[in-house]
Amino acid sequence: MALQRDYPGQVCSVASALEVVGERWTLLIVRDLLLGLRRFDELQADLGVARNVLQARLELLVAHGVVERRPYQERPPRHEYRLTPKGEDLAPVLHALMRWGDAHAPRPGGPPVLVEHRGCGGAVDAHWRCSRCGRDLGPGDAEAVPGPGAGPDHPVRLAAASAA
Amino acid sequence: MALQRDYPGQVCSVASALEVVGERWTLLIVRDLLLGLRRFDELQADLGVARNVLQARLELLVAHGVVERRPYQERPPRHEYRLTPKGEDLAPVLHALMRWGDAHAPRPGGPPVLVEHRGCGGAVDAHWRCSRCGRDLGPGDAEAVPGPGAGPDHPVRLAAASAA
Repeated sequence: MALQRDYPGQVCSVASALEVVGERWTLLIVRDLLLGLRRFDELQADLGVARNVLQARLELLVAHGVVERRPYQERPPRHEYRLTPKGEDLAPVLHALMRWGDAHAPRPGGPPVLVEHRGCGGAVDAHWRCSRCGRDLGPGDAEAVPGPGAGPDHPVRLAAASAA
Repeated sequence: MALQRDYPGQVCSVASALEVVGERWTLLIVRDLLLGLRRFDELQADLGVARNVLQARLELLVAHGVVERRPYQERPPRHEYRLTPKGEDLAPVLHALMRWGDAHAPRPGGPPVLVEHRGCGGAVDAHWRCSRCGRDLGPGDAEAVPGPGAGPDHPVRLAAASAA
């Protein structure tokens, strides 16, 4: 049975948000884009998701203004995917899920990703405050860096390598 | 095609969290439990979800220690569902999704739910701080109250009525 995406009858901002990002894989795609992956093949390789599923999820995110599709090469035409400001605003959702996973479903090697205050290096705490300099941070002030549990192929490392 | 629940190959605390709460309906069930609904029929009526789906989601949440099934009546035996501390720790995830929905998929009547500092009444801000008294808050300090967009049947009102 195909699952519906919407939640008719729910007057709820959580349900509204889940109608956009609640499908399987979607939040992991947003995670990879937040980490800095940009190209379809990078996303596909990291997620191991079927290409048609990835394509459908990206198209929905573009339709909802969460992701932007930008040309980066003319011949042959090639596109990459970037989060819009609306998409970057999902960072606190991902951060909250990550903190919950770290606390309640911990990995043997420790957290794969740490979230730091960009340029300062302090840890971003549960209150989105820098634990080093004490500043209140917004989504754009945070940066994901490899934690002790990140293997060599973890997307946080791939993104850093593709940005370098 | 049935969707898998797990994300093999993902070394990621977000993926770990989504393996527990990423299925369709699950986060809305957690939302209703956070709001104070407790009984299967209340949940089913509010969500309008098929009973077998609700049953399966609740069983998975119980198996993961997110929800506890408690007897409240002996003859005939009746049970209710309550979040464990692990389940209550999902409040920041729901809060982040709600804030994103309020900001980016707003309802015509305004936010259906407001989150306040329990006993103080100040709004809980994006930093999980009380905007009135300035205190840093944990999940247990926050309380959902009806906002301007909540109709008479909204679960935030049903929960308040069933607690009264």
